[in-house]
Amino acid sequence: MLFFTQCFGAVLDLIHLRFQHYKAKRVFSAAGQLVCVVNPTHSLKYAPTRCAAVQASTEQGILPHCHHQEAVHDPQLVPCTCPLFSCPWEGHLEVVVSHLRQTHHISILQGAEIVFLATDMHLPAPTDWIIMHSCLGHQFLLVLRKQEKYEGHPQFFATMMLIGTPTQANNFTYRLELNRNQRRLKWEATPRSILECVDSVISDGDCLVLNTSLAQLFSDNGSLAIGIAITTSKVHSSEAEM
Amino acid sequence: MLFFTQCFGAVLDLIHLRFQHYKAKRVFSAAGQLVCVVNPTHSLKYAPTRCAAVQASTEQGILPHCHHQEAVHDPQLVPCTCPLFSCPWEGHLEVVVSHLRQTHHISILQGAEIVFLATDMHLPAPTDWIIMHSCLGHQFLLVLRKQEKYEGHPQFFATMMLIGTPTQANNFTYRLELNRNQRRLKWEATPRSILECVDSVISDGDCLVLNTSLAQLFSDNGSLAIGIAITTSKVHSSEAEM
Repeated sequence: MLFFTQCFGAVLDLIHLRFQHYKAKRVFSAAGQLVCVVNPTHSLKYAPTRCAAVQASTEQGILPHCHHQEAVHDPQLVPCTCPLFSCPWEGHLEVVVSHLRQTHHISILQGAEIVFLATDMHLPAPTDWIIMHSCLGHQFLLVLRKQEKYEGHPQFFATMMLIGTPTQANNFTYRLELNRNQRRLKWEATPRSILECVDSVISDGDCLVLNTSLAQLFSDNGSLAIGIAITTSKVHSSEAEM
Repeated sequence: MLFFTQCFGAVLDLIHLRFQHYKAKRVFSAAGQLVCVVNPTHSLKYAPTRCAAVQASTEQGILPHCHHQEAVHDPQLVPCTCPLFSCPWEGHLEVVVSHLRQTHHISILQGAEIVFLATDMHLPAPTDWIIMHSCLGHQFLLVLRKQEKYEGHPQFFATMMLIGTPTQANNFTYRLELNRNQRRLKWEATPRSILECVDSVISDGDCLVLNTSLAQLFSDNGSLAIGIAITTSKVHSSEAEM
């Protein structure tokens, strides 16, 4: 009986995700810039009563948050790095993008400069807004997370990860920019490799961090627009020339 | 006996402050930019056992943090806005700068772009780093504060206040920039008027906010360099032209 209840729960989850996929990620172009509307997803990793099948597989391991704490048998295999799910998938780095698109329905956008428009910022933590960004011959994963590091005080964390190795990641610089209400906040950094754990980047706070009041100042009607630009980092390209 | 002990404590405080004043605020120019070394000051407002005389005067009022909650008898008179002290001084806006210089020994620096180098970032909260900045015919107060909004988690807050009215403040934009370790963080906003309370600006979080790990990434040998630039805001100057 419990088994059937769990199966039914898993099917409901799949229908819910499919629905979210369809209503999310509308893309339109405003003033020459590609604007991508990204709807929030409640992180299933932190909701153990749902997604029973996935939960069962992770309970056998030691990795509630980050797959990289687990010993990977084949060093060429990369575990699934989608920050939303404790997914048992493993594969080569080259097929991570297709796995994220097909299994986790994460959209991919082209363009050197895009605007990431996260909707429903008021939703309670933990919530994630995720998109892939294809640029300069590589794919990047942008993660915006609402999380309560200090109980009762949700904060927003935004970071960009390269779907590639740390050495490849060192060749790029990403910029996140918020601009509204006579305030501007810019964060520039080298993207981390997806082989590192997005959870640890966020818990270290080595990313764009916003408290709730700042997020409200930068939001318009519950949506937060983040301008994203990726460039090749000059230091490394000049080093390469030498 | 208690009176003599308090007097002795107050004299010791004065000697200590005088010493801090001399060892602080060395100014030198590096690569064409004016670099100002600012030593920290432990905020006396939060240390009620010290500075007994000042404490006694504030205990009669209702304003442990912000003088602006108090009714000002003469609307032309401005209470002392030095965030370090609960100072009973009141005076006209035109003489605030000389009061801050003479009574609180806050240095004043000239130049459109300066570097504010805050030393000893490791010191426990609450700690303030304060300097005045003279630029475009006006004086600004830069406050960097280390404070524990959430117990056990100190954060750094940086803001700029115009020593002038809110209408005058609307004509300017200030920029604070951190740049180190392949990371860059820029905050741009309209300065608040010193007639508003610096404590409330910081508690609202409407300023540059840094967690400890980011502050460490941007620090060099325990010192944090903040690039400061002030410009006249374009929106307002174009509005004025219209």
